[in-house]
Amino acid sequence: MENLYVIKIGGNIVDNPALLTSCLQAFAQVKGHAILVHGGGKLATSLASSMGVEQKMVEGRRITDEATLKIVTMVYAGYINKNIVAVLQAAGVDAVGLSGADGNLIQAHKRINAAIDFGFVGDIDAVNTNLLIELLSKNRRLVIAPITHDGKGQLLNTNADTIAQSIATALAASYRVHLIYGFEKEGVLKDTEDSSSVILRMDRSMYDSLKVQKIIVDGMIPKIDNAYQALENGVQSVIIGKAEKLNELINGKAGTTIQL
Amino acid sequence: MENLYVIKIGGNIVDNPALLTSCLQAFAQVKGHAILVHGGGKLATSLASSMGVEQKMVEGRRITDEATLKIVTMVYAGYINKNIVAVLQAAGVDAVGLSGADGNLIQAHKRINAAIDFGFVGDIDAVNTNLLIELLSKNRRLVIAPITHDGKGQLLNTNADTIAQSIATALAASYRVHLIYGFEKEGVLKDTEDSSSVILRMDRSMYDSLKVQKIIVDGMIPKIDNAYQALENGVQSVIIGKAEKLNELINGKAGTTIQL
Repeated sequence: MENLYVIKIGGNIVDNPALLTSCLQAFAQVKGHAILVHGGGKLATSLASSMGVEQKMVEGRRITDEATLKIVTMVYAGYINKNIVAVLQAAGVDAVGLSGADGNLIQAHKRINAAIDFGFVGDIDAVNTNLLIELLSKNRRLVIAPITHDGKGQLLNTNADTIAQSIATALAASYRVHLIYGFEKEGVLKDTEDSSSVILRMDRSMYDSLKVQKIIVDGMIPKIDNAYQALENGVQSVIIGKAEKLNELINGKAGTTIQL
Repeated sequence: MENLYVIKIGGNIVDNPALLTSCLQAFAQVKGHAILVHGGGKLATSLASSMGVEQKMVEGRRITDEATLKIVTMVYAGYINKNIVAVLQAAGVDAVGLSGADGNLIQAHKRINAAIDFGFVGDIDAVNTNLLIELLSKNRRLVIAPITHDGKGQLLNTNADTIAQSIATALAASYRVHLIYGFEKEGVLKDTEDSSSVILRMDRSMYDSLKVQKIIVDGMIPKIDNAYQALENGVQSVIIGKAEKLNELINGKAGTTIQL
């Protein structure tokens, strides 16, 4: 099977033009098939603020009311997605930008939660790999915005880490899939204040122990849980690290490799 | 050759949820291959206003400064494009939304005009039909936002009528292409106050005479000039009429058919 790299880049990268540029240059150098999944939360927050749309966060998650859904659809699937595609095209990468509605790529349902109404937030039901495989087979690269749909005409805001994991897992039957979470840190750190304290390889018992010690906290927990779900479902490897060092992450020279 | 319908729907349709819904239902009923090109100017104007970004129009054309380019990219390629795709998916149409940057679909250059600086407005250099033909051959339908790119990483705002004509012309070697301009009127009217005065067939000499008589004026002139350019370059037929009557337009039961 051919290698496929599913690369998620977080909001702190997307919102920083210099970081984004160096990350896209690194993406253009990746050998093999590649899919880029992007977030963009900070730009959505700043657009909401300029439009006077108040943003509510509960447990680190954005409450997506109707006005906010419009904003994230515009920012993620429009502004960020198409600018990334244009920059990649200029770098000689034949990129195609997609949301989860295009080609029925990702079907989701509006999150059901008795305690909190998250609004138009989608939890993923199914990934349809047909369009992805067609486009990858023509050596195109895909740029995916974290917007899904419910199959009844409703768009939904969906966590980009989860989208990356779901796509990686769905394609594990067709490719040797490597899932990479690129963000602003060197990897999973033993000491969050010391960027040289990267944990090179982390297995499940180490993960459990680092959680108990509160060394791994907050947003890192769902990211690593996503990583384990991918590994348990056929993804070959999951690496977390600095987005600009994409090729070092792929070559095992940087970042944290998550192991079963 | 197979039939392909390239259908442009204007801003007055896109901005009106009831009209857009009935137009998309009609689009779902079209037999054969189909591409939808959409505008969306009024929604862009209203977003600009809510963000306090002043919009300047010269000769009916939007001056696209940097803030306005961001707005049209968000509104056209994000909000409108993805909502149309989601509604079509719900209607059983396997739609894929694209901008002119995706798959290097439409290369353009920043408009050169000594008198007026239009800003980030793109005039089309080339349509790359590879991705379109790949997707159409899998019975997918395409939804195209009027955003192009210059191949150097810059997105550009481009007239949707011109995009529809350029795509229709570029695909004329591969399909029997029919170009349809759907808008809010019944067709080209002899008397703009009388919606029953539709001109069923208009050839070039009639067009010239209606222009002299000032019956055809303003925005209709570039639309019909686009139509003639398409007909001169291999497009089989061009029809202008009411967007919701899409299937009657295709069957020759409504609208104005433009002839050489």
